[in-house]
Amino acid sequence: MSHNNVLHTLEGWYALHDFRQIDWALWKEASEEERQAAIDELLGLMKTWTTHEEEKKGSTSLFAMLGHKADLGFIFLRPNLQELNQVKTEFNKTRFADYTIPSTSYVSVIELSNYVNNPGEDPKADPRVQARLYPTLPKTGHVCFYPMNKKREGEDNWYMLPMEKRRELMKSHGMYGRKYAGKVQQMISGSMGMDDWEWGVTLFSQDPLNFKHIVYEMRFDEVSARYGEFGWFIVGNALDEQALIDLLKI
Amino acid sequence: MSHNNVLHTLEGWYALHDFRQIDWALWKEASEEERQAAIDELLGLMKTWTTHEEEKKGSTSLFAMLGHKADLGFIFLRPNLQELNQVKTEFNKTRFADYTIPSTSYVSVIELSNYVNNPGEDPKADPRVQARLYPTLPKTGHVCFYPMNKKREGEDNWYMLPMEKRRELMKSHGMYGRKYAGKVQQMISGSMGMDDWEWGVTLFSQDPLNFKHIVYEMRFDEVSARYGEFGWFIVGNALDEQALIDLLKI
Amino acid sequence: MSHNNVLHTLEGWYALHDFRQIDWALWKEASEEERQAAIDELLGLMKTWTTHEEEKKGSTSLFAMLGHKADLGFIFLRPNLQELNQVKTEFNKTRFADYTIPSTSYVSVIELSNYVNNPGEDPKADPRVQARLYPTLPKTGHVCFYPMNKKREGEDNWYMLPMEKRRELMKSHGMYGRKYAGKVQQMISGSMGMDDWEWGVTLFSQDPLNFKHIVYEMRFDEVSARYGEFGWFIVGNALDEQALIDLLKI
Amino acid sequence: MSHNNVLHTLEGWYALHDFRQIDWALWKEASEEERQAAIDELLGLMKTWTTHEEEKKGSTSLFAMLGHKADLGFIFLRPNLQELNQVKTEFNKTRFADYTIPSTSYVSVIELSNYVNNPGEDPKADPRVQARLYPTLPKTGHVCFYPMNKKREGEDNWYMLPMEKRRELMKSHGMYGRKYAGKVQQMISGSMGMDDWEWGVTLFSQDPLNFKHIVYEMRFDEVSARYGEFGWFIVGNALDEQALIDLLKI
Amino acid sequence: MSHNNVLHTLEGWYALHDFRQIDWALWKEASEEERQAAIDELLGLMKTWTTHEEEKKGSTSLFAMLGHKADLGFIFLRPNLQELNQVKTEFNKTRFADYTIPSTSYVSVIELSNYVNNPGEDPKADPRVQARLYPTLPKTGHVCFYPMNKKREGEDNWYMLPMEKRRELMKSHGMYGRKYAGKVQQMISGSMGMDDWEWGVTLFSQDPLNFKHIVYEMRFDEVSARYGEFGWFIVGNALDEQALIDLLKI
Repeated sequence: MSHNNVLHTLEGWYALHDFRQIDWALWKEASEEERQAAIDELLGLMKTWTTHEEEKKGSTSLFAMLGHKADLGFIFLRPNLQELNQVKTEFNKTRFADYTIPSTSYVSVIELSNYVNNPGEDPKADPRVQARLYPTLPKTGHVCFYPMNKKREGEDNWYMLPMEKRRELMKSHGMYGRKYAGKVQQMISGSMGMDDWEWGVTLFSQDPLNFKHIVYEMRFDEVSARYGEFGWFIVGNALDEQALIDLLKI
Repeated sequence: MSHNNVLHTLEGWYALHDFRQIDWALWKEASEEERQAAIDELLGLMKTWTTHEEEKKGSTSLFAMLGHKADLGFIFLRPNLQELNQVKTEFNKTRFADYTIPSTSYVSVIELSNYVNNPGEDPKADPRVQARLYPTLPKTGHVCFYPMNKKREGEDNWYMLPMEKRRELMKSHGMYGRKYAGKVQQMISGSMGMDDWEWGVTLFSQDPLNFKHIVYEMRFDEVSARYGEFGWFIVGNALDEQALIDLLKI
Repeated sequence: MSHNNVLHTLEGWYALHDFRQIDWALWKEASEEERQAAIDELLGLMKTWTTHEEEKKGSTSLFAMLGHKADLGFIFLRPNLQELNQVKTEFNKTRFADYTIPSTSYVSVIELSNYVNNPGEDPKADPRVQARLYPTLPKTGHVCFYPMNKKREGEDNWYMLPMEKRRELMKSHGMYGRKYAGKVQQMISGSMGMDDWEWGVTLFSQDPLNFKHIVYEMRFDEVSARYGEFGWFIVGNALDEQALIDLLKI
Repeated sequence: MSHNNVLHTLEGWYALHDFRQIDWALWKEASEEERQAAIDELLGLMKTWTTHEEEKKGSTSLFAMLGHKADLGFIFLRPNLQELNQVKTEFNKTRFADYTIPSTSYVSVIELSNYVNNPGEDPKADPRVQARLYPTLPKTGHVCFYPMNKKREGEDNWYMLPMEKRRELMKSHGMYGRKYAGKVQQMISGSMGMDDWEWGVTLFSQDPLNFKHIVYEMRFDEVSARYGEFGWFIVGNALDEQALIDLLKI
Repeated sequence: MSHNNVLHTLEGWYALHDFRQIDWALWKEASEEERQAAIDELLGLMKTWTTHEEEKKGSTSLFAMLGHKADLGFIFLRPNLQELNQVKTEFNKTRFADYTIPSTSYVSVIELSNYVNNPGEDPKADPRVQARLYPTLPKTGHVCFYPMNKKREGEDNWYMLPMEKRRELMKSHGMYGRKYAGKVQQMISGSMGMDDWEWGVTLFSQDPLNFKHIVYEMRFDEVSARYGEFGWFIVGNALDEQALIDLLKI
């Protein structure tokens, strides 16, 4: 056991990515009033989320997802697992939830890894660190989410590498992120002990081609090429209140 | 990080491959009028797709899929993810959609890879490039779709190869495509950051044996033999308006 | 690209293996008349398949499948993908289909591989070749179906072997088939570009132990031991009209 | 092709392991009379199975399965695939079956492998061989079932080993079975050409800790450690008539 | 066969981890009285579990699970498989169960492995051993559950290591547990012969970040890095009676 082998990590808000299909047949079957009541209740709930966000108690964004995997994608950031579960339950108790089918989700906690902590300093006092651990989620543009592992197969075993090698590889890897600064906003969340993969990666951009380019370029970097193990990918468009109303309009 | 290691790629229209089963029991249970109304609405929607296509704002084709995986396969090409999602939503709001069950889908963007860009030139000005990035989808014959990755397993790691080696391998690989020119039309779309595999391959041909032959021959090429990782395959027959009406006739 | 590396293949009829569960609760709930009408319609459809078979326009057999995966298994052989899809649609439009749940299927085309074509000869003129490409499916005994790939893993990569090595290995492999001649009838169908695996193998025998023995013996042959990748297996008993009526009798 | 490379195997009864969940909501919703009628019919069917068993025409046992995978587990041993399918159909036609949901199943045939056949002898004449090929299934205690393959991965390829090596490894492996003689009763059934794995292993014991211990110990034996590939595991408690009635009592 | 190669293991109570989704639409549809009756019956059942726990005949805890995989998680510890199955059946017979959908579960038995048994001593007489084999499950804080295997892939084959090497590796591995003593309570249960993985790991903590940290740190330890194979992970919040009532309040 060599504790020194492990890099320091800072954690911020817990994250729930909640993806749902709309049961369109049931939604269309409902009466106009029932649909309006369901939408009103949903919009009311969303207002409480906005208030929460303004009070810096969390952040929430909503997306229209592409493809058959999901129609709606919620990202909830909350300070602890109790509140994260409460927001799921609260949504499930709405009328609108009865017209949705949970397709998948992801539970994790925002992290800043590979952080060099100077003795005597509180890293969370740094406003840039604060902004990354407790972010306000974008309300426009596009989202891309995927879970991932670091590989442990034969010669390609990330966890058997010495820390210096990992640190060096991650430094090179991080330069991709910097290259896309201003174009792609990244949110890395750790999910060991919480969900099926080791990390969740959430990307935000005004142009979804940036998702393709950053993932493609990074794949040639040794960290991804040899040590990256990728799960499913999903992409969506940010939904503001009006876009949501239009989406649900029959 | 060696940016020069990455080949240039041009992107065109976004693509949604949308595969659905027909709920035959429900369809047969519906009244003759209900079925007629559903078909009329669907045909109306298809007319707007045709108009869009004529205005070069996208392209759409419809196929009858073989096997239990799907009965219908739509391919939608659109200029951006907003319109791509809109077409899914629009279809889901039709009466006919209530008689279908989404079985799978694929989200990607048409790409031309390995493109050599001469300085000072706009590659998209080339009409042959235009035609491949913004194609009009075939309306007759057959379709074959499959997603794929480039492998990253032990010694067989595409992303660890030097660019020169990859370029050389892809050149040889491309000759298969040329051999089948006039027999098979290929559409390659990139899906990194958008769907579960790295690429989607859509083949069109008047003779489905060509699908078998091109996939078989290519599998002996080192690019596929060592570095190709293949997902699911699905095959279908083009459906024009009359064929669709016949398919749905009870 | 070395075209000479690829062995010649002859293709015959297209094949749809269509496996379905019976929704017994729904079937029992139906009235005696409804059940009788559904059976009558099904038997009528089966008569048209028999006529087709007599006219050498295809072949069809029906099996009672073991285990929970399926209750019924249809094998349809047809000259092209249009007719193959038509038979699916035609069945789905019957009353009886409403009492079944598609569980899985397989789309492929019968092939004779490794064929040595003498210049100036039409191989399909050979009646033995004809009989294997356009077979009449057995109506008694048992069926075994499984899809398979040739492996491409590290050192065990079939598609990287030189043609001479593959030819030699296949020759030895083919001797197992010959050993079971008269006991097991084999139908090999290629499914590249059509379904998820590279080949489908359909075995027919009066004694199902032959399935176990031939698969077991072949597994020690290098072609299977090193290069075979196997999917799911399913086994069934041939159903004639009377046996089908008995099966469906409540 | 070296036929001599293959060890001799003797086959006995065919086996269907049929695992089902109870649809408790539906069962509770049924009237007391309906439930009683369903139970009576089931008990009647079980009596015919007992009679069959007494006449040495097969054997049947019923188990309450642990966990969410299944509530009930039937093991049916029958002389051929026709009777094995008949017992499935017969059960599916009962009222009680409408309150169950098939979750999984396994089709195989009991085998004695590695058998040394002396010339001129009929091995099935040996009563110990008879008892193992045509066993009477235990009616008390516990059951454990799992399917398995022999591995074919890189250096760990069972089917590429010379027969002498395999025989030697299996001899050592068999000693574990002998160590647990009297504590664990093993039934090995071959499923090549019949179901998705190569073998099914059914263990019976009065103490389920024996399942854990025998599987654990064997895993250190080279046959399992290097060459064993294991599927799913399920464990259950034997159900006699009274226990079944109690289980179903609302 | 070298029995000495196998380390000694002590077993305690059997464990059922039972994860369920709530069918919210159905629950909301039910009348206020029906819901109250269902809750009352559930609370009554939970009281019998508490009494059992006080009598040291087992232990039960209930959790609200994060994400779409489950809403409720029960952990049942019982002295044998009969009682473990009885508790499942008993719950399934309640009204409340009709509003839940089993999503997954895990069957195992608590174990202390690598135990050095001094001759003439009864290890279960040691109160610390007792407390770990027959624990009282925590009623506050958080739970994390995941199943796991020891790997058997090429060079990374745990079961081919000599016992001395395994003992040494496990000793180092165990130091992580000790480091988190007081912060994380671990319950290891063996599931060979009972469920799909070899072990289940259940962690309890007041701070769920401890789950992330212990899993992350351990992953760099050779036992996990080279030999650990991990399944799914799920995380939850302890639910006392009042929290359960609040969760179910409409």
